[in-house]
Order: sequence, then C-alpha cells, then structure tokens
Amino acid sequence: MKNPGFLDACRDAIGTAHVITGDTDKAAYLTDQRQRYTGQALAIVKPADTTEVAAIVKLCNEFRIPIVPQGGNTGLVLGSVPDQSGQAIVLSLKRLNRIRAVDPLNNTITVEAGCILQHIQEAAAAAERLLPLSLAAEGSCTIGGNLSTNAGGTAVLRYGNTRELCLGLEVVTAQGEILHGLRGLRKDNTGYDLRDLYIGAEGTLGIITAAVLKIFPQPQVQLTALAALQTPADALRLLSLAQQRCGATLTGFELMSDLCLQLVAKHFPQLPFPFTERHPQYVLLELSDSEPAPHANTLLEAVIGAALEQEICQDAVLATSTTQSRALWQLRESISSAQAKEGKNIKHDISLPISRIAEFIAVTDALLQQHFPDCRNVTFGHLGDGNLHYNVSPPLGVSEETFIARQAEINRLVHDSVDSMDGSISAEHGLGALKREEILRYKSAVEMALMKTIKRALDPLHLMNPGKVT
Amino acid sequence: MKNPGFLDACRDAIGTAHVITGDTDKAAYLTDQRQRYTGQALAIVKPADTTEVAAIVKLCNEFRIPIVPQGGNTGLVLGSVPDQSGQAIVLSLKRLNRIRAVDPLNNTITVEAGCILQHIQEAAAAAERLLPLSLAAEGSCTIGGNLSTNAGGTAVLRYGNTRELCLGLEVVTAQGEILHGLRGLRKDNTGYDLRDLYIGAEGTLGIITAAVLKIFPQPQVQLTALAALQTPADALRLLSLAQQRCGATLTGFELMSDLCLQLVAKHFPQLPFPFTERHPQYVLLELSDSEPAPHANTLLEAVIGAALEQEICQDAVLATSTTQSRALWQLRESISSAQAKEGKNIKHDISLPISRIAEFIAVTDALLQQHFPDCRNVTFGHLGDGNLHYNVSPPLGVSEETFIARQAEINRLVHDSVDSMDGSISAEHGLGALKREEILRYKSAVEMALMKTIKRALDPLHLMNPGKVT
Repeated sequence: MKNPGFLDACRDAIGTAHVITGDTDKAAYLTDQRQRYTGQALAIVKPADTTEVAAIVKLCNEFRIPIVPQGGNTGLVLGSVPDQSGQAIVLSLKRLNRIRAVDPLNNTITVEAGCILQHIQEAAAAAERLLPLSLAAEGSCTIGGNLSTNAGGTAVLRYGNTRELCLGLEVVTAQGEILHGLRGLRKDNTGYDLRDLYIGAEGTLGIITAAVLKIFPQPQVQLTALAALQTPADALRLLSLAQQRCGATLTGFELMSDLCLQLVAKHFPQLPFPFTERHPQYVLLELSDSEPAPHANTLLEAVIGAALEQEICQDAVLATSTTQSRALWQLRESISSAQAKEGKNIKHDISLPISRIAEFIAVTDALLQQHFPDCRNVTFGHLGDGNLHYNVSPPLGVSEETFIARQAEINRLVHDSVDSMDGSISAEHGLGALKREEILRYKSAVEMALMKTIKRALDPLHLMNPGKVT
Repeated sequence: MKNPGFLDACRDAIGTAHVITGDTDKAAYLTDQRQRYTGQALAIVKPADTTEVAAIVKLCNEFRIPIVPQGGNTGLVLGSVPDQSGQAIVLSLKRLNRIRAVDPLNNTITVEAGCILQHIQEAAAAAERLLPLSLAAEGSCTIGGNLSTNAGGTAVLRYGNTRELCLGLEVVTAQGEILHGLRGLRKDNTGYDLRDLYIGAEGTLGIITAAVLKIFPQPQVQLTALAALQTPADALRLLSLAQQRCGATLTGFELMSDLCLQLVAKHFPQLPFPFTERHPQYVLLELSDSEPAPHANTLLEAVIGAALEQEICQDAVLATSTTQSRALWQLRESISSAQAKEGKNIKHDISLPISRIAEFIAVTDALLQQHFPDCRNVTFGHLGDGNLHYNVSPPLGVSEETFIARQAEINRLVHDSVDSMDGSISAEHGLGALKREEILRYKSAVEMALMKTIKRALDPLHLMNPGKVT
C-alpha cells in the first residue's frame, strides 16, 4: 500500500501540521462554493512556499497521486474540488500569501498564488496604484485561482481579463520543476508563450505559485451614471456613443433588464430605485479619470445629453458623489443575491460578439418562452465585454424542483443559441468539471485534439486536476 | 526520388503557376530583409486560401518536406527564410490577402494572414476605426508575420503588442488540419489558450491563416511634444508624471539620446532641430484623445509645465498642428536610417523593467566604454514599454569591419547586462535563426525543455520552420 508512505513523505517535506487527513478538518476543502458537490481526498496538503510545492508535486509523481490545486475555492464550475475517488490530494496554495514586491515605477506587483485578491488591491493602493481586477469574491478568492480561471470581473472593458493583467508567472510544472518566469516586462519575444498556456488552464497543466501583475496610476475620479432605455439594441447604441466620446475613460458598461431591478427592489427594499417610472432596460456607465472631477462630469453629461437627444435613452441619473456612485453600483451588484433570494435559478455565463447581443437576447428569449412558457429571464452583465449573465428563473407559480429538473434542456437551448451566433458558453468562469462535457458539443474535434495533445505533453502521468477541462 | 512527386502534387493542388521553382523567381523569397543571409528552397509555394494551405501542409507531411512560412519577409531575426539545405519549401501567405469582415459595432476586423498591415489600417479607417498596430515596415509586412512574431511598434504603451490586439485565429496545424478559432469575443474561457501559443511562435508550431483583430474608435486628436532632459532617470520621472496625469490618453513615449538626433541632423539636414541648444536626452510624448483638440492641448501643456517647474525637463516644444506633430515623429523615425547612413552598427532590441532602465543605460554604457573605448551608443526606443533599441556604432576613425568583427563580444556584454537586470534580449523582433543559440544562455533549462516539449507535441515530424526558435 503506497499511500501511507506518500503521506509520511509529505509530512517529512512540509511538516505534519500541514498534511491534513482528519475528516472534519478536510471538509472545508472538499465542497464547492455553491455547495453543489462534495468530493473526497486522501489529504489536504498545504505547502508554505514554492520549493515545498515542488517537493509535494515530485512526491505525487513518485507515488502517482493526483493533485487538485486549490486557492480560495470560490470557483463556480467545480474546478477546485476533487472527485469521489479519494485518491487525490487537494494542494492548497493558501500559505503562499506573500506580496513579494511592489514596483510603482515599473507599475508591477509580484505576488504569491495564495494572496487574497483584496489584499493585493490594498497593497497596490498603499503604493498609490490601482490593481483593476475586481470581482464579487475578491474578499476570499486568491490570485492563483483568478489566474488559473482567467477571471473577468467589472473592469475588463478598460483593463482586460486577468490574462491581460499578468506579465510573468512562476509555475511548478506537473513534474515538480520550477519554471522561473516572474518577468516584469511589457515586451518579451523570446519563444513560446508559456505564461498564457498556464493562465486559464484551471490547474490541469501545472501549478501557478506566483505572478507579476500590472498595476496602474490610480484614477483621481470614478463617476457613475444610470441610463434608462427601451431595448438592448439601444444599449449597444449607447455603448458606441460612450466609447467614441470617452475612449479609455469608459471603464464600466453594465446592462440590467427591468426584472433584475424589480427583484432587487423586492428583496433589498432599502436600496432606492432612482427613477420615477420603470423602463425595460438600464445601463450603468462608469468613467475613471486621471483629471479632476469636473472633467469626467462634463464628459458624462455630454454623453448622456447626446443619448437623450438622439432618443437612445429616455432618462438618466448621474451620481454626483462617491456615495451616490456606490448606491448605483449596489443595484447592479445585488442582482445575483436578489435572484437567489427569489429562489433557485439556472445561470449562464456567456459571451457574444457585441454586435450580436441584441439579436441573441431577442431570439433566445423567444425560444425560451416557446419551450418554457412564462420562465423569467433575469438578464444582466458586462455588456461592454459582450458578457451576459443570462439567468433564468422559474415561472411564477412553478416549483423550483419542476423547473430545475429541466436544467439540461434549458442549458442546451441557450448554449445552442450562443453557439449559433459565434459566442462562448463560458465567458469568465472556466470549464471545470461542470462544463467539461458540455464543451464537447461546441468545440471542434481539431481544437479538442490540440488541447488533449498539450495536456498529454505537459502532464503525461495525468496527475494535474483530473476530470477538469480536458 | 520523392520530391518531383511532391512538386507535382503541389501543382495539382494549387495550380502550376503558384509553385515557383525557377532560381530567378525564387530569389526574392530567399534573402532576408537586411540582406544578411540567403537560403535555398525546393520551391516557393503560394496557396490561394486556407484550404489550399492545408492541402500543401498535408502533402508536406506525406513527403516529409519542411515548411518555412513567409509573409512580407520583413523580419529582422532570420525567421522567414529557409536554411541552406534546399529541402524546404517557402510557403508564402501573400495570396491570402482578403479582408474578410469589418464589424464596427464589435470593434473587430477579420483579415487573412497575407494582408499588408497598412491595408488593414486603411480598411479600419474606412469604417471610422483605428487599428493601432503600427511599425516601420507597415507598407510591406503582413499581419500573419506580425502575429507570428508578436510585433510591437509605436502604440504598445496604450494598446499592447500584437498579441493583445488579437481575439481569434484560424490556423493550419503542422498536420494540415484547420483550427477554426476566428472568435471575436472579449471573454472566452473554454480551455487552453491555443491562440497565444501560435502567436509569437514564428511559424514553428503551425501556420496562422487568418485573425480577428481589435479595432478602436478613432481618436479625434493626436498631439505631440518633444521634451529636452538631462538623463534617462529624468525621462522616467517624466513618464510617471505623464501617466499619472494623462492615463490612457498617453499613447507614445519615446526616448532619444542627443547622439541619435545629431546623426539625424547630419544625414537628414532638411529635418529641423527644434531647440536652440542641445540637451543630453529627449523624449517624444504623444497623446491620443477622444475629445476636441483644446482638451489634449491643455493636458499636454500642464504635464510639460509641471515637468519644467519640477526641473524634470529643461525645455520643450509642443506641436500645434498635425504637420508639426509629423515633423517631431520624423526625427524619431529617422534615427535608424541616419545610423545606417553613418555606417554599419550593432543593434540590440532589448527590454527591461521600466524601473531599471536608467541603471541599465548607465552600467552598460560604462562597461562598453571600458571594453570598447569610444564606441558610440545610439540609444533610443519605446521607453514607455521598457523597450530600448540599444544600438552601438563604431568609434570615429575605427573601420566598420574591425568593429563588426567584435559583434559577438559586444552582444555578449549587452545581453549579459540585460539578463542581470531581469530584461529580455528580444523585445519585439523574436528569435528566428539569429538569436536561437543566444537565448540558450539566458533561458532556464526548465523553460527550454517546456518549449521543446510543446514543439514535439504539436509538430512531431519537425517540419515547421526548422532551425528557428527552438
């Protein structure tokens, strides 16, 4: 029996206290964020640094033990929990939580994989810099997980996904070698782009242990407006107008249907609805500016003024303070919670070419009504990135169970519609175990074969996060 | 003898006229841009479209014929010319030159690999959009080559390298399969990042046949200033100041030493030097703005005013018209030609963490003077990206031949210095055949092994651009 030898070797390598085998202590690492799935693990192994990660991975190679890398375990696609076999270890990166360096002149910060996103934001802010990566789980997710899932969030429109924010990586390969790639360079063309191969690979090719991230001068002002519109097509016209006039100052452009804000009003009555009457759609715009407040204010007023004049929008409110800005953002950020309080629902994290979003919503809403009459679309998302959270709640009066039982049919309808318009069925959450089968329907055989070829080449023993992605 | 059978099969596949075997007709494809090297090829093969590229690659697999993909053949590292064996074909992508689609609402343009960069810029402009990729060879380089070398250019500070401008790729794999990845999505997290693996791979993993590129609303105004400074350290202080105040409006930040502009004055006397006296260093700043001209003008005046007040710079000129802006850019763009007119010189396309550039220049200049007394540093480049063209001309009175004979020593000194400060020996030109050996000194064994693993996995017959990169 090999495993006892393996666990003893792990204890020798990183200390007995950091190899967790008790069921109670293991539990917190085995269930996913949304509490949909609980796996089994031989142990939770918590190395202190990169050298210890490499030592553990070498032991896993020796004993043929599968490895499930885990950061904050806040993922939404079952990418960071083990399967039922109980053969794998969960390799928690949480103890690798040092900010290694902040370089304000190079506009970079070097961090270990287990750093909580919010702590990195704070370290950047302490150096008068902005780390633009921001998402709902930022208080508990870790940067290693953000990188491994190429997380999106609320600032992609201006700053890109996590991929675009990363200049260099330190990685422990599937064989337990350390790839020292912590380069803080804006340009480096010396061979294959290994960095981007590990980013978004969801821990199936190796383990990201540290990264160099871009940071930016802090904007002086962030200003927000909420516009009320008739249709998603009008929202797209507003997007064009705002991009034309504001350039890179436009950092947020979020769409919300009226039903979204109705649910927010119902479940969070303390949040004021800023208009006197209801409208079919709303857009939250955010400008981030390096100049004093009057400049962004004038710019935003001009955009909204033009949109009202061109009848792109019917009404709008401009936040005149940070408090008001926060209040508008809170409406947007409360949609998921409000929908959850309303009951179980079916979520889709999809993206489309921006030019096809209005068509997608019209066609897919109609298809859903045809097949699932009176189901309620709770559609919102990062319209500026072409990313919709196209969520569906049951018809009023239909039980959650009845509705959720048809989840596969609804997913199929929505994903087929996405695919027919050249979109993606996972915009910012990854594949994990959840969408691993689903993607086979939409990726070409050539693409899947290439992915499998890379997996086999870099992880020939198939130890890295088995059952995820490929 | 297999080859005649191969060539006949190629002729059957794409037409006799497009399989070039005559020495005179082949010549133009066999010598590199700087006329340093001439290789040999079995034939120049010019397919018309992606299907024909795939057919040719399949034939190459069948007959084991190596393939050298070639676009505009403007590369600087011997990446697009064949070796001396005469066994390979040059696969020219020039006939794949269609603009497949322009989508202004999605801000994307879909182009074939053989499109000349300038034609793509023009197609974007016709749709009132900007393709920001811009570089010296834009009138003859092709986008397939730009992607395969991850080209940089003059707008990286704001828009990133070619990699960051690409959303999707169509690729013919080393086996002759077509990877249909022309997605125009800002967010797509459905598996490994194959796109970024082919970008920058210099044709050694497969052949890029088409791409979806990001385009942007055209700025209303581009405004330029030239600042005169004492030291590279002051230039970095100016960079910080300009980034803080201008945010993403700052699109260009180019450093030039006085010797650069002295050479321009000597060899292009018609270009006016804009200051009354000489200064050790100069910085060209460019703002691109979505607002009417007075806004950028005020912003640039404020930055320069603050820099003068803080004694970061000693003098400055602001262009007040597009003509004046062009004149300032012309000084910058004439440095390479002026240095060439002065005689042969040794070029280094390097990058560094921006925070270490001043130290790098001081240390490396001193080392060079110590070992090669009176050699002349002609240092300029994209300071905002940490990318220097750290070129060295012979001392006055020393013959080119004597000096160039010591190229390997000088490269070694410069590259070792770059490496000691965590820089890259190829910032935007790639490795090709020219730096393939040199990089072995600076990349770790782990990184080289990973690159070779990927090469073997994706191109097991080793047919794709042999002798380049790995």
